[in-house]
Amino acid sequence: MTVVELEELLEQLAPAALKLGNDPIGRCIGSPQTTINKIGVALDATVAVISQCVEQGINVLVTHHPLIYSPLTRLDQTSGFPESAVVAAVKADITVLSAHTNWDCAFGGINDVLADILELTDCQPIEVTQGSVVRNTGIGRIGKLKSPIEEAAFLQLVESRLNITVRCSEPRKRLVQTIAVCGGAGEGLYSSVRDRADVYLTSDVRHHMFVAAYGENCTLWDAGHRETEIPGTKHLGTLLSQHLDIPVVWINEPSI
Amino acid sequence: MTVVELEELLEQLAPAALKLGNDPIGRCIGSPQTTINKIGVALDATVAVISQCVEQGINVLVTHHPLIYSPLTRLDQTSGFPESAVVAAVKADITVLSAHTNWDCAFGGINDVLADILELTDCQPIEVTQGSVVRNTGIGRIGKLKSPIEEAAFLQLVESRLNITVRCSEPRKRLVQTIAVCGGAGEGLYSSVRDRADVYLTSDVRHHMFVAAYGENCTLWDAGHRETEIPGTKHLGTLLSQHLDIPVVWINEPSI
Amino acid sequence: MTVVELEELLEQLAPAALKLGNDPIGRCIGSPQTTINKIGVALDATVAVISQCVEQGINVLVTHHPLIYSPLTRLDQTSGFPESAVVAAVKADITVLSAHTNWDCAFGGINDVLADILELTDCQPIEVTQGSVVRNTGIGRIGKLKSPIEEAAFLQLVESRLNITVRCSEPRKRLVQTIAVCGGAGEGLYSSVRDRADVYLTSDVRHHMFVAAYGENCTLWDAGHRETEIPGTKHLGTLLSQHLDIPVVWINEPSI
Amino acid sequence: MTVVELEELLEQLAPAALKLGNDPIGRCIGSPQTTINKIGVALDATVAVISQCVEQGINVLVTHHPLIYSPLTRLDQTSGFPESAVVAAVKADITVLSAHTNWDCAFGGINDVLADILELTDCQPIEVTQGSVVRNTGIGRIGKLKSPIEEAAFLQLVESRLNITVRCSEPRKRLVQTIAVCGGAGEGLYSSVRDRADVYLTSDVRHHMFVAAYGENCTLWDAGHRETEIPGTKHLGTLLSQHLDIPVVWINEPSI
Amino acid sequence: MTVVELEELLEQLAPAALKLGNDPIGRCIGSPQTTINKIGVALDATVAVISQCVEQGINVLVTHHPLIYSPLTRLDQTSGFPESAVVAAVKADITVLSAHTNWDCAFGGINDVLADILELTDCQPIEVTQGSVVRNTGIGRIGKLKSPIEEAAFLQLVESRLNITVRCSEPRKRLVQTIAVCGGAGEGLYSSVRDRADVYLTSDVRHHMFVAAYGENCTLWDAGHRETEIPGTKHLGTLLSQHLDIPVVWINEPSI
Amino acid sequence: MTVVELEELLEQLAPAALKLGNDPIGRCIGSPQTTINKIGVALDATVAVISQCVEQGINVLVTHHPLIYSPLTRLDQTSGFPESAVVAAVKADITVLSAHTNWDCAFGGINDVLADILELTDCQPIEVTQGSVVRNTGIGRIGKLKSPIEEAAFLQLVESRLNITVRCSEPRKRLVQTIAVCGGAGEGLYSSVRDRADVYLTSDVRHHMFVAAYGENCTLWDAGHRETEIPGTKHLGTLLSQHLDIPVVWINEPSI
Repeated sequence: MTVVELEELLEQLAPAALKLGNDPIGRCIGSPQTTINKIGVALDATVAVISQCVEQGINVLVTHHPLIYSPLTRLDQTSGFPESAVVAAVKADITVLSAHTNWDCAFGGINDVLADILELTDCQPIEVTQGSVVRNTGIGRIGKLKSPIEEAAFLQLVESRLNITVRCSEPRKRLVQTIAVCGGAGEGLYSSVRDRADVYLTSDVRHHMFVAAYGENCTLWDAGHRETEIPGTKHLGTLLSQHLDIPVVWINEPSI
Repeated sequence: MTVVELEELLEQLAPAALKLGNDPIGRCIGSPQTTINKIGVALDATVAVISQCVEQGINVLVTHHPLIYSPLTRLDQTSGFPESAVVAAVKADITVLSAHTNWDCAFGGINDVLADILELTDCQPIEVTQGSVVRNTGIGRIGKLKSPIEEAAFLQLVESRLNITVRCSEPRKRLVQTIAVCGGAGEGLYSSVRDRADVYLTSDVRHHMFVAAYGENCTLWDAGHRETEIPGTKHLGTLLSQHLDIPVVWINEPSI
Repeated sequence: MTVVELEELLEQLAPAALKLGNDPIGRCIGSPQTTINKIGVALDATVAVISQCVEQGINVLVTHHPLIYSPLTRLDQTSGFPESAVVAAVKADITVLSAHTNWDCAFGGINDVLADILELTDCQPIEVTQGSVVRNTGIGRIGKLKSPIEEAAFLQLVESRLNITVRCSEPRKRLVQTIAVCGGAGEGLYSSVRDRADVYLTSDVRHHMFVAAYGENCTLWDAGHRETEIPGTKHLGTLLSQHLDIPVVWINEPSI
Repeated sequence: MTVVELEELLEQLAPAALKLGNDPIGRCIGSPQTTINKIGVALDATVAVISQCVEQGINVLVTHHPLIYSPLTRLDQTSGFPESAVVAAVKADITVLSAHTNWDCAFGGINDVLADILELTDCQPIEVTQGSVVRNTGIGRIGKLKSPIEEAAFLQLVESRLNITVRCSEPRKRLVQTIAVCGGAGEGLYSSVRDRADVYLTSDVRHHMFVAAYGENCTLWDAGHRETEIPGTKHLGTLLSQHLDIPVVWINEPSI
Repeated sequence: MTVVELEELLEQLAPAALKLGNDPIGRCIGSPQTTINKIGVALDATVAVISQCVEQGINVLVTHHPLIYSPLTRLDQTSGFPESAVVAAVKADITVLSAHTNWDCAFGGINDVLADILELTDCQPIEVTQGSVVRNTGIGRIGKLKSPIEEAAFLQLVESRLNITVRCSEPRKRLVQTIAVCGGAGEGLYSSVRDRADVYLTSDVRHHMFVAAYGENCTLWDAGHRETEIPGTKHLGTLLSQHLDIPVVWINEPSI
Repeated sequence: MTVVELEELLEQLAPAALKLGNDPIGRCIGSPQTTINKIGVALDATVAVISQCVEQGINVLVTHHPLIYSPLTRLDQTSGFPESAVVAAVKADITVLSAHTNWDCAFGGINDVLADILELTDCQPIEVTQGSVVRNTGIGRIGKLKSPIEEAAFLQLVESRLNITVRCSEPRKRLVQTIAVCGGAGEGLYSSVRDRADVYLTSDVRHHMFVAAYGENCTLWDAGHRETEIPGTKHLGTLLSQHLDIPVVWINEPSI
């Protein structure tokens, strides 16, 4: 099986038309005609992840985040990420592809997995992808808990399900039921959910957005970038494994 | 005493020439000839903070963050922050000024206070402010601990001094001594300290910067935006109080 | 009755789709759910006009010109228009809306009123609004006098009907019949009427446009900005009055 | 005498370094080595002015306003000004030069002549030309009348000296003494003189600037573009005549 | 017959909708109502070509390349091309029009003529003109030789048919059959034909494009700008001659 | 010896301050601390040149043209130059540096070598590099032949010395003596030498520049990009060889 066939499968699972803006999704290292031995799936193509690929005989790596996000004018493996990882991948003949905002938006992608974990029902995208002809989907999900629960109880549920300490204001004494989620950096969608949700769960929230949310009905929670995206990225690996006769392995990102 | 005299004092403490880029520091609501009754100092001019000013007879508010960061084309108090707070301040005749990146960079400002709390010595700015004729200062500080200590021990020290759970990788078994700090959002300076410090403490760190720091010698820590800026902002209030015969009070930002 | 209902009525009379470029029409001060007591109509929301509103118990002001034309980064009531008027309106709880180029272009708007005063017939827009799905309208009007008259006689008619001294070249000895009009600043449309009209009546004409018109068949006349727009703006007030049960009053712009 | 020698004389009288922005001053038609027979001076190089040159044996025309203000991609003499005039000048072998904002700013130029006519003393430029090494000059003039006079009386004086009906608000009952002037289109300088002058006299004032001046101490008057610039342009002709042995004639711009 | 009628004929032969980018095709000197005496056709409107027009009683010149490519702010006949030629044309009352990229793309235009000379069959445009509603055409042509021939033999054929020394790498020992051509400067299309043609024949090829083609299957040849465009430009003259009762003459561009 | 030491030597020979615009000179592949075994010098880092390096045990390649001219977002070795060459260099651990417009401008660089070959004396740069503090140098050279010779004879001399067929107009019967040269693509400098030289020798001349030169005193010749730059690039290799104890070899660019 060749890389171009894998690209076709990814197009079905996470159609490129769903990506946001100029997100450089897809293959950034390697060639379409390469034969695949074994597939690795990870959040980021760090040097440590590339080393894992080499050790495990993996020659194609699918990541959530694109490895070459800003165009490169120099390749010096001693000057840090991502140059170091680009050089490592090229030298090890590892093809690198990413399914990023297209997988965030896709049916069954990052955000649907996150909504499932929190047992949200009747989910809709927060914002429908502009110009998308690929059915009615988009970024983030907004859905309902089976029944209203105390904000503090829901906080506990989130922290336990995602195994994270949420960064937020002190929970208010009130019931919440309509929940918005966006795995990864989603503070830009706050104004879009402000009048529609009781809680908005995302990550990479900067101070000025917390300030904007003070006193609003919709509480803003930062639940961690890795923690909100790893479940959906692992799920992509599971899907690939189900569709292909090639071994697919999850590579945990070494954090040191 | 009038607002224009307060502006002159702020210019001495936090010279406008030190600000970064087009940061809209200074007076954004009110007039220079207003007579000051009482001064409030806060991190942000939220609606709740403005209410506190009204309750406490404060008519001039000095904040760290500028209230009008993006120019406004509409003022509808029901459409959220900052419009709601702008309308509240105008209606309550409260003058609002900010000392933001000029106070971050100033001698004795946000970053010097932060370095003092961590007992760093021989501090230098991480980057000298371009075109600054105001002596040799700039953004962030890089200094040394009296003696090398275990990374895990330093982490414990930071968490206890700033009363925060730091977001970071698991501490490595090693000694650290050279520490860089930048109160508030400072991830953009990581490349500048990468080869000069053992630990870089800042806030509002997004996932892609944590990834860039994986495996580098310099560990990246997110210690909270509020937690790294409140000490320096409170200190500005103390300085104003020492220079003026007018009451100056700290207004804690209600987080709900 | 609330402001949002007034906005819906204005949308019928002067559809937003007709506006030119990025004209910041609509509500710039105040909130949609405000209950209307009394409506004022004026050309501009100057401080003196806002004072009139306060005196007359008006809490909603509809003007032709937008009050916040350029986005604001500071609100100091001592630094002149429009800041002074914005602060005055906010403090007096006066909602301010404008119908500007959408009302210039609309059926029965500024330019149709102007054409009626000059008794033009068979009027067409000078330029159809790009992308407008709202029937066949646009900016300016070009129409015919019942019969040809001497240019000097038509000049006299204009000056007497609009009560203005027109700025123009000395009238030529000839008959004129096809007349183009554009209330307010309309010099940019001269090239569009140059070969279609005998006289083009507009205002805010600068020297270089008079020079461009020297020797051309189409004479260019400056008939005053206020004088060509007040009739149509007053007419908007009349229409509001006819549609609503709320008192609507015209506020003459004090010129000092 | 050749055109290049005339260019050197103009550089002394109206140094190019004084021009504002990208003003396309200088020679726009013709060649430096052309021998000058007779010089014409006019406000604009219209077709009628070019015809006058031909009739009077003039082969070099000096105007205040540049003939080619916007770059040309087509030369069709039937499509109006300035193409018509460019073609006429080329066919008649007439060299065209302009001294525009450099002459507005120069010592003894447009604005000094205007200030002299109104008997202003102690004149300073309104704004000093950025980066000008040519002594201390700039655009506009601000000076004092010998003694304070009634605003209405000064209005009458202006109208009689410049032979124009000024466009302005009704004169207020008060004395005026500090007067700012800017020949030609000068509304952009209003904010610069707002707190320094009692009256600001310029031309090409559009409605929104009149609105900005309502209620301010500094009254804004529109005294006509031609009327405020012709005296200074004629004076340039007089100076050329004094420095050269070649006949120099003033060509009045036919207004039809 | 007037110029506007010639413009209508050119619109049929080389529709403006086919032009690429902002190419300033069409009339750049002269007026639509001019009566045509005699038409000249040339590659460029140089001063020498204009002189030829004068000598031969030609008052309308059709060229392939636009005379005013960059807008002009000055017309000094001593400062070189194109100013010299613009002044010459204006003074000689010669109307100048061009059919440039619209004629490159048109059916029967520059590239079809070039493909005919090389006996290519089944020709398609290299790239279809974006948004063109004028049937299925575009820039360049890609077609097939009747049967495969040695690369060296085809090189010899091109050099003999176009009377030019081709700039290229040494011919490889192999058969070629699919040939792409683009008269004039066409290096930008190389990536578009790289995987579709054996040889790409164009002109104005710069070094970096030759480098990009080293080792690729598709050989890049520079066959001269004049040599690849003169046949198609002459052919336009022939077509004009067939459609009109006015004499049409080809003016060879003097090369000195 | 390490790469950083070679970079220091190149800085002396071809100072970075001399480069034109944003030319991406310097190291584009590899790290400063790499130990150098053997140096290759070539015009371009093509795949074939990289292969030569591998065969000859070269691990550092100095080229005239930068390998990564436009930033890269993808590295697919099957998608042509430069991606193919970047991947080849990374995989073969070859460091790539370039001295481009800095070497064009430098004393003893590309253009001085070219001027020497043609025996020009009293050479000056055509244009001095803006802001260069590195003595008085710049791009191109203009100098004199010992004595005037026939244009045709000089053409013959150039063709024989550089071993190239020059693309140009037919030589005029006249003597030439002042000669301007610019190795590589230099048509942009024609207007700068138009009135100063009899012949301007450069390469990559496109048709519109040949047209601009028709009839001018200064004849424009295209002598080939490779042919005008190879001598100066080889000379750089010679200089490196003289300064270093490491073997330096010239790699001829295979043209197929």
